[in-house]
Parts: sequence; C-alpha cells; structure tokens
Amino acid sequence: MTEPTHPLIIPGFTFTGLYCGIKDDAAKKDLAVIYAENPATVAAGVFTTNKICAAPVVICRQALKNKHHRLIVINSGIANAATGKAGMQDATLVQKAAAREFGLKPEEVFVSSTGKIGLRVPTEKIVSGLATAKSQLSENHFYETAEAIRTTDAWRKTAYIKGVLRGKPYTLAVMAKGAGMIQPNMATMLCYIMTDLAIEKKALQKMLKLTVEPTLNSLSVDGDTSTNDTVLFLAGGSAQNKPVKDGTNEFKKITSELTGLLREIAISIAMDGEGATKCMAIHVHGAVSDADAKKAARAIANSPLVKTAIFGGDPNWGRILAAAGYSGARVEELKSTIKLGPHALFVRGHLKDFIAEEVSLYIKSQKIVDIIVELGLGKGKATMYASDLTYDYVKLNAEYHT
Amino acid sequence: MTEPTHPLIIPGFTFTGLYCGIKDDAAKKDLAVIYAENPATVAAGVFTTNKICAAPVVICRQALKNKHHRLIVINSGIANAATGKAGMQDATLVQKAAAREFGLKPEEVFVSSTGKIGLRVPTEKIVSGLATAKSQLSENHFYETAEAIRTTDAWRKTAYIKGVLRGKPYTLAVMAKGAGMIQPNMATMLCYIMTDLAIEKKALQKMLKLTVEPTLNSLSVDGDTSTNDTVLFLAGGSAQNKPVKDGTNEFKKITSELTGLLREIAISIAMDGEGATKCMAIHVHGAVSDADAKKAARAIANSPLVKTAIFGGDPNWGRILAAAGYSGARVEELKSTIKLGPHALFVRGHLKDFIAEEVSLYIKSQKIVDIIVELGLGKGKATMYASDLTYDYVKLNAEYHT
Repeated sequence: MTEPTHPLIIPGFTFTGLYCGIKDDAAKKDLAVIYAENPATVAAGVFTTNKICAAPVVICRQALKNKHHRLIVINSGIANAATGKAGMQDATLVQKAAAREFGLKPEEVFVSSTGKIGLRVPTEKIVSGLATAKSQLSENHFYETAEAIRTTDAWRKTAYIKGVLRGKPYTLAVMAKGAGMIQPNMATMLCYIMTDLAIEKKALQKMLKLTVEPTLNSLSVDGDTSTNDTVLFLAGGSAQNKPVKDGTNEFKKITSELTGLLREIAISIAMDGEGATKCMAIHVHGAVSDADAKKAARAIANSPLVKTAIFGGDPNWGRILAAAGYSGARVEELKSTIKLGPHALFVRGHLKDFIAEEVSLYIKSQKIVDIIVELGLGKGKATMYASDLTYDYVKLNAEYHT
Repeated sequence: MTEPTHPLIIPGFTFTGLYCGIKDDAAKKDLAVIYAENPATVAAGVFTTNKICAAPVVICRQALKNKHHRLIVINSGIANAATGKAGMQDATLVQKAAAREFGLKPEEVFVSSTGKIGLRVPTEKIVSGLATAKSQLSENHFYETAEAIRTTDAWRKTAYIKGVLRGKPYTLAVMAKGAGMIQPNMATMLCYIMTDLAIEKKALQKMLKLTVEPTLNSLSVDGDTSTNDTVLFLAGGSAQNKPVKDGTNEFKKITSELTGLLREIAISIAMDGEGATKCMAIHVHGAVSDADAKKAARAIANSPLVKTAIFGGDPNWGRILAAAGYSGARVEELKSTIKLGPHALFVRGHLKDFIAEEVSLYIKSQKIVDIIVELGLGKGKATMYASDLTYDYVKLNAEYHT
C-alpha cells in the first residue's frame, strides 16, 4: 500500500483516532471518533445476521430509528460480544457519555466495538478517551481514524471518490476493517461510509442495501459470520445539493459509485483474510436464478478444498464442480463449464486438454484469481469474493488463546 | 490400531482385495470384491446428495431396483467422477464384465470407485483383475478387502458385532473408507455393511436410512460433500432366521446395534480426516426442534474457527456460540450454555470463571472432544462428528496437484 501524500477531506466531517488503553500495545490506536458537523446529517445501517449479536449492534439498531445522527464511537481490542446484560449496560453508558461530551442526544450516537469476545469493555478508559478525542477532532484525520479501527488487519482499508453532481463537487469515502469475517476473538467487519452529499434518509437506506449486497455481503473469509458486523452510512449535506431521492439518475450514479468503492473494500478484506495470500473472485453465470447462482458461488467460496487448491496453485476444477454440486443450486455436469481466468478447464461436461503448469502459473501470479462457472441452465448470476486457505490461517486461529 | 489375530468370518460371504494396476504403487491394493453366496441375498443403499455424482453411483442406484444382489466391485485410485458419458460407459462395462465373470445378471452387481476426479478408469485392468479376484475369493479375506478400498486413509475402518437372534447366531460387520468427505482428488466415503441375517428388503432399506442419519450423515471432515459417497447393506440369510420385518423387536435390536457400529466408523473417519488430530463430537440439546439442533451442530462442525481452536487446544466458547448464532437455528444468548467435556464455560448467558489451562489440557488430552451446547429453548437434539482443522489439512490439500 502506498501511503497517501495528503489528507482525505470530507467537508462537514471531522475525525480522530487515539490510544485510550484497551489494547496492550500503547503504540496502537484503539478508539476512533467520526463526527458530523451538520445537525441535519442522516444515517443508514446494515448489521450482522448472526442471532448472537453484540451489544453495540443492538444499540445501533435502536439508534437508527432517530431522524438525525452526528457521531460514531468505535473501540477496537474488545468486541463487547456475548457479554449479556452487563454488555448492554456498558454500550449504553458509552453512548450516553459520548452524547454528553459532544452535546448530543444519545440516539444521535452510534457505538461499535471490535476485538475479543466475552470480555467487558473498560468503559472508564473509553469515557476518558472521549474527552481527548473531542479536543483532537480534525478534518485531516481520516486515515488515522481508519488506523484506529484495525485489529489484526495487515493494512487499513479505505476507498473514496470525488465527483460533481449537478454542479456541486462532493466526496464519497469509506473506511473499513475486518481481517476475518469473524476473527478468532478479534471479531468483525466494520465499515463506515461518509459523504457530504445530501441524500434523503429513505433513499440512503435503500442505497446502502443495494450496494452492500453484491459487495460486503458477497464476501467470505472463512464462512463464519461475525457477531459485530456493522455498516453505517452518514450523509452530511455540506455539498448543498438538492437531497438525492430514490429512483433518480443521481441516485443511480451514487449507487453505482458506492458499489465500486465497496467492491474495492470487499476485495481488500478478502486479500487480508487471516493468512490469505490472494482473493478468489467467483463468478457464477447461467444458473436458473440469481439466488441459485449465489448458492453455488457461496459453496465454492466456503469450500476448504477449493480454498486450499487456490493457495497451492492447483487448477482443481473437480473440487469447484463438486462444491457447486452440493450447494443446493441446480447443476448438471454435462452443461457445466469451468474456467480459471482465461483458461477453460472443463467445457459442457468435457475435460479440456489444458496444460496444468500454465494454469498453475496463472493462479500463482495473480492477487485476484477469477473462478468462472457457467451452469448453462438460465440467466442467474452472482459473484462472491473469498480468501484462500493457508497454513497461516490455521496458525493464527489455532495459536490464539482465549 | 491393534491388528486382529484371526479373520472375521461372515457366513455366506467371501472377499478379496488385490492390486490390478490402477495405483502407482504395486504394494498397495486397488481392487476389492465382496461376494454373497446366497442367491436370495437382498440389498439396500444410500448415496451422495451431490448433484454432481459419479457414474458408479448412478449404476448402483439403478441396480438397487433389482430384487437380489450378489456382488460388489470396488476400485480405488480413480473415482470415475465428472467423466460424463464415457464414465457411464466405463462403469457399465465393469458391471457387465463382473456379471459375466461370476455368472450373474448385471443388475445383481454393484460397482464403486474412489480416487482421482476427472480421470477415466482403466477398464481393461479392472476386468483382468476380476478373473484373479474370483480365483482368490475367501471367507478369510475381510480385512484384506477393507485394505483394498483405502485411498489416503491412514488406517482401514472396520467394525463388527456377533450376536444371537431367537437362538440363531449371526454376524453384522462393516468396512469403510474415507479420510475426507471429499478428498483432494481422492474422493469419497464408501461403506459396506454385511450380515448373514435374513432381513426383508424393505426393512433393510429402512434400517439403513435410520442408522446412517445419526452416524455417517452426521459426520463432517471439511463440509465438502463427495461425488461418490456410497453405503451398501447386504443381508445374505445364511443365519437361517425368520426374515426380520420392520417394526419388530428384532428390527429394533439390529437397528440399535448397527447404529453403534456406524457411530464407531463415523468417529474413526473423523479422527482420520485429512490432517486431523482428533474428533469433535458436537452435542446440541434444548433446540426448538431436532432439525434446528442439527443446523446448529452442523455449523459448529464446519466452522473453521471452531476446528482450528480445538486443534490448538483453545477453549474458545465464543466461536462455538457465534457458529450456533449464524446456523439458522433459533439461539438466544441469555439461554445458551456451552461446555467442553466436563467443563462449563458459559452458562445461560454468563461467562463462568473457568481455568483456561485446565480446559486446554482437557482438549489436548482427548482423542474425542465433547462440545456440548444447551440452547434452553426446547427438546430438539442432535450430534455431529467432525475433524479438527490443522496445518496438515492445508498441506495435504494445497500440495496435491491435479
């Protein structure tokens, strides 16, 4: 990753990331604050589907009912997950303290946590960190804040686009973390999207759902679903455009741009999956429905046999076909075609006479390996992004101790 | 494994296992034959649910419609899977050649294959091996035959019981293979059950279904489902008992005994999973239904995070709870309890003050680790057997090349 040479500024937003004492290593940051200056800022959110969901997720879901939102407080190091009633009290306390510190209503404040499961967050450290955070807020601290939400991520994940909408310049930016969908005890994918555009609250929620589905919801590191997954989208309105409405060309343009940014983030998370050496992009075409295509793509994405084959540079189309076969999707061997990048391995039931060394070289030389499956049954299609499965995944997850 | 000191004899059955030239190493066996002497022998079968299923599975399903069955021919080394029409022709050729050699009708013959996917079986080697096999058949060759069906299995899998039914002594015996549910390209779980009891064909099929569900169908090495999985059950009738009917006490007794044998086989397969160091036995109680319990148990069994934690001796109840949470089963954190063997880690939403080193020692010292999850919601229960996930799993599956 090349370091950015200048700060990323999103008009109307200030940030900070600092160390408040949760992580053992004081050289790392563990508290992040995102502040929206405009009282009219609106928010949208999508969260983990895991029935065991962490206290901050419950708090965010409740807060989302409010009309306006101004603040996101994120701690890394402890996930406040599987902490029962005490965990709810802790998350509520942080939300209220942040509201007091910033002169807001509690329901204008979102809280997120990521880190070890089953431990309580040190609320007094976070609360005293919030005072420091307030004094350090700056529009120049986007990247430092993206640093502060990392746990075992090898690199921070950010993406942005600057554009013009009906004459108004605007910025759309994303910061995220998530080295595994659920890390050992370093749980969670967290993702925060900010724009200075004005977008109607209902349109914002719809846009978030539309853009998350083919990107972050099509991402699998190890098939495990975190208890803390959170995506929040704040639209501040400093761009002074006419608020974007659902169904308009403006809506489509921003949706398309955000899909691109979130795809970039999804691929970055997959490549930084625990122990991963590369991202597998699994494209299934020709299924009887999009849902069937996603089933097949997901089974391939989660198959340990496919993931280890890609790690090993093995053009093992048999494992890919077998995973599609047990996915629940309709699959017929004699109609199926499998390609790895430009190399066709199996075409409508017939094994091609490919040169294994050549295909192996293709796999080994790519950071993103395209696995293309054509089922030949209909028009359904889907793409999934996934990590390969390596020695280091086992090492990271077997040697970590609760 | 201690070597048996005397042959296992199942009256009415003869066996042989030999090398016919499929595997590279002539010191290994690659052709097995199971022969039932009694023309009245009946058979039952269950097969892979994978929509990509190998040619021999198609042949077995068709043959099963016949009233009587006499012969099973199994080759190891090549799976004859994903081989299209040519594969069907090859499997049919072997079935017909075996029938001719043994003076039977083709539909009295089952064929199985296990090994590499996408390659055609050398039918001429198998056919010439069949003549040798016929000349070597012996009631003393049960264990040699169990050897011949192995691929990457570290040990052969057999189990048996000898009993008395209404004064008639009988034998019920199982041989199986399957180091991974689907091996790299050494695919498949194969399992053959034989008894000298007479059992009505309909009762036999029902008994097989009832016994496979809580045992072999509750087994997961890596979550991948093979294209070749086959379980066949032959009842020869030499015990001269009145044929066992569905619903009788005799039916229940044999069903219960066979469940025990297949559980033993399932645990042996899990322990011999690719690279596995131990078997996880996941017991879910208190679910709203048995189906929900199985969902939760299966998600835990297939979670790479749980599997690596058990490999590492890490009492990571958070990963277990999170896997139950995303399984699709109804789960409530505050009603959930998690135990590892005798150690309670999390009780109805509260983290217990356990000594991590003690629980870690329990995990490390066991070949079968009991993971007990009580959901506190109803009476549904299920058990799954699974392998842990290790460096050697990645090594075996990444370094194998097609």
